[in-house]
Amino acid sequence: MSKSVSLEEAAGFLLRHQRILVLAHQKPDGDALGSVLGMRSFLRNLGKQADALFPSPLPERYRSFAGPVLTALSRQEAERNYDLIVLLDCANAERIACGPALDADFLRSRNLLNIDHHVGNNVGAPYNYIDSTASAASEIAVELAQATGKAIPVEAATLWYLGILTDTGSFRFTNTTGKTLRLAADLLDAGADSERVVNAVYFSKPRRQQQFEAELLQSCVKTALDGRYAYASIPPELFAKYDFDMRDGEGLIDLLREIDGTVVAALIYRKNDSYKVSMRSKLREFPVDPIARSLGGGGHDMAAGITLALPDAAAVEAVLLDKVTGLLRPVPEP
Amino acid sequence: MSKSVSLEEAAGFLLRHQRILVLAHQKPDGDALGSVLGMRSFLRNLGKQADALFPSPLPERYRSFAGPVLTALSRQEAERNYDLIVLLDCANAERIACGPALDADFLRSRNLLNIDHHVGNNVGAPYNYIDSTASAASEIAVELAQATGKAIPVEAATLWYLGILTDTGSFRFTNTTGKTLRLAADLLDAGADSERVVNAVYFSKPRRQQQFEAELLQSCVKTALDGRYAYASIPPELFAKYDFDMRDGEGLIDLLREIDGTVVAALIYRKNDSYKVSMRSKLREFPVDPIARSLGGGGHDMAAGITLALPDAAAVEAVLLDKVTGLLRPVPEP
Repeated sequence: MSKSVSLEEAAGFLLRHQRILVLAHQKPDGDALGSVLGMRSFLRNLGKQADALFPSPLPERYRSFAGPVLTALSRQEAERNYDLIVLLDCANAERIACGPALDADFLRSRNLLNIDHHVGNNVGAPYNYIDSTASAASEIAVELAQATGKAIPVEAATLWYLGILTDTGSFRFTNTTGKTLRLAADLLDAGADSERVVNAVYFSKPRRQQQFEAELLQSCVKTALDGRYAYASIPPELFAKYDFDMRDGEGLIDLLREIDGTVVAALIYRKNDSYKVSMRSKLREFPVDPIARSLGGGGHDMAAGITLALPDAAAVEAVLLDKVTGLLRPVPEP
Repeated sequence: MSKSVSLEEAAGFLLRHQRILVLAHQKPDGDALGSVLGMRSFLRNLGKQADALFPSPLPERYRSFAGPVLTALSRQEAERNYDLIVLLDCANAERIACGPALDADFLRSRNLLNIDHHVGNNVGAPYNYIDSTASAASEIAVELAQATGKAIPVEAATLWYLGILTDTGSFRFTNTTGKTLRLAADLLDAGADSERVVNAVYFSKPRRQQQFEAELLQSCVKTALDGRYAYASIPPELFAKYDFDMRDGEGLIDLLREIDGTVVAALIYRKNDSYKVSMRSKLREFPVDPIARSLGGGGHDMAAGITLALPDAAAVEAVLLDKVTGLLRPVPEP
């Protein structure tokens, strides 16, 4: 059985249960981390036992926000210790960050509440609250907390602010709505430490990362279609030279998107035996999601990703250029 | 006579007058431009005759938002054509952008309403509404419009969103409050084209500017005091190489501020026979305004500027390093 619940019903779940495990998607980004840890803080503040599970290491820049988290959990412990499992910000059953001992089928056999903002969420939990108009899972978490009628503690406010800020690119992406800004305002009023969040997200770039980016921009950027398409393949030597890892690459593609006249941007890098591609669009009328889907990837209209098993970066560039040419032509009249 | 008026009184001024001239400070930034042009749109939508005067050219990236503006105005025309002059975002009488034919004394002899958010506004207009807790003049403009009870047209919403976004660094600076975010939400609800604003402000960087920045970061950044101070002197050759002008340098210093561990950042460049210095702080407990004031400059705690008539950049760097060393010592215990 898998059913949709209302916001109020979901809030009722949180209030009724006492021992709660909170989960997100694998390779947590700012919103996964913020929504889960903010929920943990909110629930603990209500006197509940609440734990967060993150089987893989958290990104360096967010680590100071996390405090101690569970890094592994057996089935027995999950069965014995928790009467509710809350999953946040995870669109796909196979991407639930639950560690090798648990799996989606097991989780779905439990009291599982699935809270998400992604279109096409396929977790199929017993209870689902999906709002694809929300900018971030953290935005929904704030609404949920408000629906309980309980106060939002300062720590949860800070963590949810982190989640909203990172998923909206500091309120610059088109997912930012009036509601997003009002809920963020409520978090500031609740004492969210926005200065700490902003410094961690935007003003904590390691010097070597900055130099990596500078060299990437100097040496690797190509443009096509009258500058409307900008792309870059990152050579493996560049990663090595600056000891840079794509785990810290959130936002890297924005460096291509920020170029004047660019409509579509793509960033290409080798991972294991394949090439990973990130794509962005700056205009709603030229969505990159169809390109990604046609190549076995997916995402949103404005942001999508693909993995391609091609022999070299040049082959990837050629495939993408062909697709982007189809998307951007004919050039609209000025 | 110079007196403070309430928000409601200021709103009443707008409603009562019919022929209104709107002014800002010289070298208009996003907020000066947005607040003035948004006000023009708002007033025209009420059926009034409203004009904006910008004697100096507008920054390239904002020009498409402006439409036709007055670039010069004689005293006679100002006397004859307008029964109210509204000044927005201008802290100092000598910085009013009114062209050579007008001056502050003349303007103060008129029906002048001075709307601003800077601490220490010294315009001394007949009527003043100064709110230094507002993030931007555009934020006050929204409140003013709401106080009139009249609807905000889409164009004004877009322009005021531009003003708030640029003065808050996309809601990242510490001047962002719950009120800021709520008023911005009201603008989105009124139809503000945030996508256009964001693309103009953050995603319209000329490629040569990006390369200028990349080379600056590769070649010119120095750090001191265990990385807590980052600074760069821009060599004149670099400006020439990329045909870059500091008129487009809004935000350049954020590249230094974004480096991990930096508390204070300074950017130094030659202008005419002097050196201009921009300074930023990332932490409220280390304000840069006192340093700027001690060297004849000024600004806010987190952002200040100085002009120094010293023989070379090395001399400027030495003076600043000495001051910043005094500010940042002793190093607090971790």
